[in-house]
Amino acid sequence: MKKILLATTMLAGTAGIAAAEVAVTGYAEIGIIRSEAGFAGSTNAQFHQDVEVTFTMSGETDGGLSFGAAIDLDETNVAAGDDSGTTVFVSGAFGKLTMGDTDGALDWAVADAGALTSMGDDHTTHLFYFAGNGLDGSHDNQVVRYEYSFGDFGVALSYEQAGNNATGTLADDNVAIGATYSMDMGGTALKFGLGYQAGSDAPTAAAVYTNGDAIGASVSAELAGGFAVSLGYIKYDFDATNVAGGAATMADFAHTGLGVTYTTGALSLHANVGHFNPDVGASDSTYGLAVNYDLGGGAVVMAGYGSDVGAAAGDQSQYSIGLGLSF
Amino acid sequence: MKKILLATTMLAGTAGIAAAEVAVTGYAEIGIIRSEAGFAGSTNAQFHQDVEVTFTMSGETDGGLSFGAAIDLDETNVAAGDDSGTTVFVSGAFGKLTMGDTDGALDWAVADAGALTSMGDDHTTHLFYFAGNGLDGSHDNQVVRYEYSFGDFGVALSYEQAGNNATGTLADDNVAIGATYSMDMGGTALKFGLGYQAGSDAPTAAAVYTNGDAIGASVSAELAGGFAVSLGYIKYDFDATNVAGGAATMADFAHTGLGVTYTTGALSLHANVGHFNPDVGASDSTYGLAVNYDLGGGAVVMAGYGSDVGAAAGDQSQYSIGLGLSF
Amino acid sequence: MKKILLATTMLAGTAGIAAAEVAVTGYAEIGIIRSEAGFAGSTNAQFHQDVEVTFTMSGETDGGLSFGAAIDLDETNVAAGDDSGTTVFVSGAFGKLTMGDTDGALDWAVADAGALTSMGDDHTTHLFYFAGNGLDGSHDNQVVRYEYSFGDFGVALSYEQAGNNATGTLADDNVAIGATYSMDMGGTALKFGLGYQAGSDAPTAAAVYTNGDAIGASVSAELAGGFAVSLGYIKYDFDATNVAGGAATMADFAHTGLGVTYTTGALSLHANVGHFNPDVGASDSTYGLAVNYDLGGGAVVMAGYGSDVGAAAGDQSQYSIGLGLSF
Repeated sequence: MKKILLATTMLAGTAGIAAAEVAVTGYAEIGIIRSEAGFAGSTNAQFHQDVEVTFTMSGETDGGLSFGAAIDLDETNVAAGDDSGTTVFVSGAFGKLTMGDTDGALDWAVADAGALTSMGDDHTTHLFYFAGNGLDGSHDNQVVRYEYSFGDFGVALSYEQAGNNATGTLADDNVAIGATYSMDMGGTALKFGLGYQAGSDAPTAAAVYTNGDAIGASVSAELAGGFAVSLGYIKYDFDATNVAGGAATMADFAHTGLGVTYTTGALSLHANVGHFNPDVGASDSTYGLAVNYDLGGGAVVMAGYGSDVGAAAGDQSQYSIGLGLSF
Repeated sequence: MKKILLATTMLAGTAGIAAAEVAVTGYAEIGIIRSEAGFAGSTNAQFHQDVEVTFTMSGETDGGLSFGAAIDLDETNVAAGDDSGTTVFVSGAFGKLTMGDTDGALDWAVADAGALTSMGDDHTTHLFYFAGNGLDGSHDNQVVRYEYSFGDFGVALSYEQAGNNATGTLADDNVAIGATYSMDMGGTALKFGLGYQAGSDAPTAAAVYTNGDAIGASVSAELAGGFAVSLGYIKYDFDATNVAGGAATMADFAHTGLGVTYTTGALSLHANVGHFNPDVGASDSTYGLAVNYDLGGGAVVMAGYGSDVGAAAGDQSQYSIGLGLSF
Repeated sequence: MKKILLATTMLAGTAGIAAAEVAVTGYAEIGIIRSEAGFAGSTNAQFHQDVEVTFTMSGETDGGLSFGAAIDLDETNVAAGDDSGTTVFVSGAFGKLTMGDTDGALDWAVADAGALTSMGDDHTTHLFYFAGNGLDGSHDNQVVRYEYSFGDFGVALSYEQAGNNATGTLADDNVAIGATYSMDMGGTALKFGLGYQAGSDAPTAAAVYTNGDAIGASVSAELAGGFAVSLGYIKYDFDATNVAGGAATMADFAHTGLGVTYTTGALSLHANVGHFNPDVGASDSTYGLAVNYDLGGGAVVMAGYGSDVGAAAGDQSQYSIGLGLSF
């Protein structure tokens, strides 16, 4: 649901009159969240309210380049060499360049398993949820992505600096390439995605990085009758030693995600499952569920469930139910 | 003084075109504040400026439910299980449900002694100012309140979780009920309020809580000739032992407040006194004064005085004078 | 480039209908910054994006006083006795009173050497850049300035409290006076500025203050053909002992700045040099360069360079190149 604040604006510049806009939109939640005990951050059923304001900026140069930016109310004081949650883009006939809190080219190409919304993002934050994000965010999450589309094809390149390009950084920058192809097959809209990313990662910011790569693919389909399905796969391979020459801090694994969504009238139902399969050790799966009921006017009843959200042994589920309100 | 930013908005959703708005309003202060020496935070006469922006959101579902939310510029990053200064509400034929930084049902029913505004809130932050707030805020200040009105009557119920409902929390949740009745008596508008709250409190966040309750009542009147009067009373009773079985950390006391406001043309004068009367020990009173002069267009000359704002022995007064500017 | 968000607003107050506005404008940057190694905070070439939102408030009393305020998205929680980046003003036939993050009267009168914009402010943050700021900001940067203009003359007085007027503060408040005179000489617009400030300063917040004064003058000219030139000079004199009776923490010096800007069509070029000349010891100069190319619609290509931005021995340059986007 997209809201446009129509504000008449005037620019008095050297190049004549042109239009630029700041759209102010809001979002609020009210309801109850709960997560099972047994891990840090777990919470018994408690009340939850949240309010957010987003500023979305758009403009166009005299030569026809489009540009824009977005920032939320809580994304103040954007740090140098960090994304801080903001994005800035410039687009034109050459394609589109985006910088900041945005997907790398692999993530851009490979479809997420999730759909719909829930207050606690329960259905998209379970342990093995398939977000198709590759190595994105292993450094400062300030990603630069270039994308270009022609007909039913789209391609993208992305770059995330390791250690802000500081002298002596041994970890590889995250570099990715992705491609998508959309087609219609007898009323079913199909979209294929393929991506590759080379770079580095570490389990925690304090750990030594290990270089590696990720290759992934997805197919998503919107079927007649309100069904949508998404299937994605990414294989992660890391070096046998970390960048300092010690034992690798990251292990190889494959990640698979399947999501199914059904919409009928105001009601939407969603389920997704993520499967984690390490080259060494036991594999595991977690799943998420979401129900949305659109009341119109920007109000949606939302329920969400994640089967396991805590890293502790056994499953620690989480759920939420409430209203999501868009303004 | 209420300002409405008329912004034309469009919602393109599944349920057709509906309206939702984010109103952006501002407030600024410029002037001088001072508080007498003798306590932490006291300050000689110094300059004061402050600027605030408020985002007020409103919408309506297709079925006629109203909903809304409010957040200030400095209320970013709303924490889970906390109010962080924000509120979200949903209202309809069933009544109104509000969550976040809002009054509990006792506070909702029992009238504050204060009126008008001052830069340092001097007249409403003196030690024994009567805000009629009962036990509200003794936990995380995330209050859920349901209210319903019929004719001249209004009723409310409220709930504030102790320790966010964490397992092992011994302190009682704050639960309150309140009722109001409005009537006109020969040109004098009268409003009666009555409330009861059971829950727990502690003098500081670090102290062990003691369970107890509060019962309060108020009568407020708007007289012909520009006078308004408010009288309120709350009696607090706590258990003899705290929730851990030790000596109670909170002592029983009665709190009384009287406020008088007179308005003639652009000029408004206000005085209030708060009286603290513990079951054991000496009682004490403090008072506050405020003068407002409306310059029109959102500008108000404001002067405020609080007779004692420091916890140290003796009285430490505070005053401010300046302009309050609403945009 | 100035943008005005025309928002229809209504005020329902006691004094009838009047207008007050909150204009929401945005600014974003996207590009690359770099500074030479050799000092804390230096950075190899790295990506840079930044997004800012500004709220500009304006109103008018029934009696014709204008008032306004400004705050940025990241200037939340304005601290008592601090400017926190905000400003509030009131103006009328009596002149204009501004409080907060604003220039003292010397800075207000004496022209800066800089012009144009760059992503890293490289051309206006080199070590000896001439900002003409006198002693401003040596305390909490909460400045109160009164200004008045008559014909081609302008005068201003300013005041910045030392230690927020706390009892026992030995450092002098910063008090300044400034005057400007504008004239046209055969198509060349000339502006003269003259200012004097008495007060105190310290090299770091932890150091003992030394009282002193500053006297400065500037002349700036806008020539036919797109050239603009600015020349400024300030002489700083400090007491031989600091306020505690020890050796002075601030040494006497003269500061000179020259800036030249040339604009032709969409292209603007700027260079400035700052010269630091202490009474004792060696003098030094640093310079800055900026190039702006206006793409229209609020988009400007910006390149900036500062010859020395690090306090370490030798020169540590800094540059940036990217787009500045105004919404």
